[in-house]
Amino acid sequence: MPAPIDFYFDFLSPFGYLAAMKIDDLAARHNRTANWHPFLLGITVVKIMGLKPLLDTPLKGPYLLRDMPRLAKLLNVPLKLPEGDVMFDSLPAARAFYWMHDQRPDKAKTFAKRLYMLRFQEIADIADPERLAVEAQALGFSGNALLDGLQDPAVKQRVKEAVDEAVGRGVFGSPFFIVDGEPFWGCDRLWMLDHWLAHGDWVARPGGPLPPV
Amino acid sequence: MPAPIDFYFDFLSPFGYLAAMKIDDLAARHNRTANWHPFLLGITVVKIMGLKPLLDTPLKGPYLLRDMPRLAKLLNVPLKLPEGDVMFDSLPAARAFYWMHDQRPDKAKTFAKRLYMLRFQEIADIADPERLAVEAQALGFSGNALLDGLQDPAVKQRVKEAVDEAVGRGVFGSPFFIVDGEPFWGCDRLWMLDHWLAHGDWVARPGGPLPPV
Repeated sequence: MPAPIDFYFDFLSPFGYLAAMKIDDLAARHNRTANWHPFLLGITVVKIMGLKPLLDTPLKGPYLLRDMPRLAKLLNVPLKLPEGDVMFDSLPAARAFYWMHDQRPDKAKTFAKRLYMLRFQEIADIADPERLAVEAQALGFSGNALLDGLQDPAVKQRVKEAVDEAVGRGVFGSPFFIVDGEPFWGCDRLWMLDHWLAHGDWVARPGGPLPPV
Repeated sequence: MPAPIDFYFDFLSPFGYLAAMKIDDLAARHNRTANWHPFLLGITVVKIMGLKPLLDTPLKGPYLLRDMPRLAKLLNVPLKLPEGDVMFDSLPAARAFYWMHDQRPDKAKTFAKRLYMLRFQEIADIADPERLAVEAQALGFSGNALLDGLQDPAVKQRVKEAVDEAVGRGVFGSPFFIVDGEPFWGCDRLWMLDHWLAHGDWVARPGGPLPPV
């Protein structure tokens, strides 16, 4: 079995959501799997890179808001965005993910997909610990145990280490993929990840995903 | 004849160069033409968006430097980068372009391609006014007239207006394309521009540039 694809994402990221709806199928087509790693754009973009949140950036913010629905259509993924502020606190969801992951990695991925779909198909409030508890219960966990986990210093530390590890590998945006040492940033690089998985090189080929060369 | 593609770029941008080597052929395949518009990332990225220069941004800078050569290979475009600082002052080249454009638009595009190839295939110093004068002479212009043009307040104002107009249309990165009111940012969106020109919508199609949906 070839090495898995590491898939990094922030639960608040619409582009991360679009990629999340695609990455497992894409990986499977190439006999790979995807390991999911939530991280926090607030750490990478704001603290480490010293930038503004993307959607608050002049010119780029409006472009990205326009880009999301058309990319969703091209990927054939349903996407709903709230009328007002798209941002929310994704830290509780990240903590919930790692709390669950360290017990049952398989269920954590299902949980992550469910949270993303709740957020970007139903505009649910996935920053709400009570909502996270309900979703954890639906997967067979104790809701109260999850609520305790969200406050557990060990879980907080676990998230911090996960983010540090992502940053150490060069991850900064959501989605971000690393496979065979090759990094890919952006939902609009799925075609390039697909190319790499198919060929393992950067040789242009007729009929490839880019315009003929 | 359908509307032309507006192609925005900064002469200092390696991704702009890669796009420049492709855009006219891409346009022609769809019975379109491309209008070339140099602008200044120093105005959009640094002054208006309040960001650092891309290559000086932690995490993103190293990623982009790694991304350039592989994207060049995929596009089958030769690319050489200087060992040291990739940045240079692209204002004289932009002034030279508009100075020439307002006399002979056809020659200005040839001039722009030549400058980009000099920079990114031979690592020539295209910030040097004397070099710009030599290249203008090769296209039948007076080198001294170009050197005078670079100091001409009217030419300086012309560049300022061109950048303002680009910003007014939402342009911020290099390359940037606008056609039929649709904006596209990045050399890695050529496939999406191609899709738009072929179909005029965002409906996913089997065999399209993205992984099957």
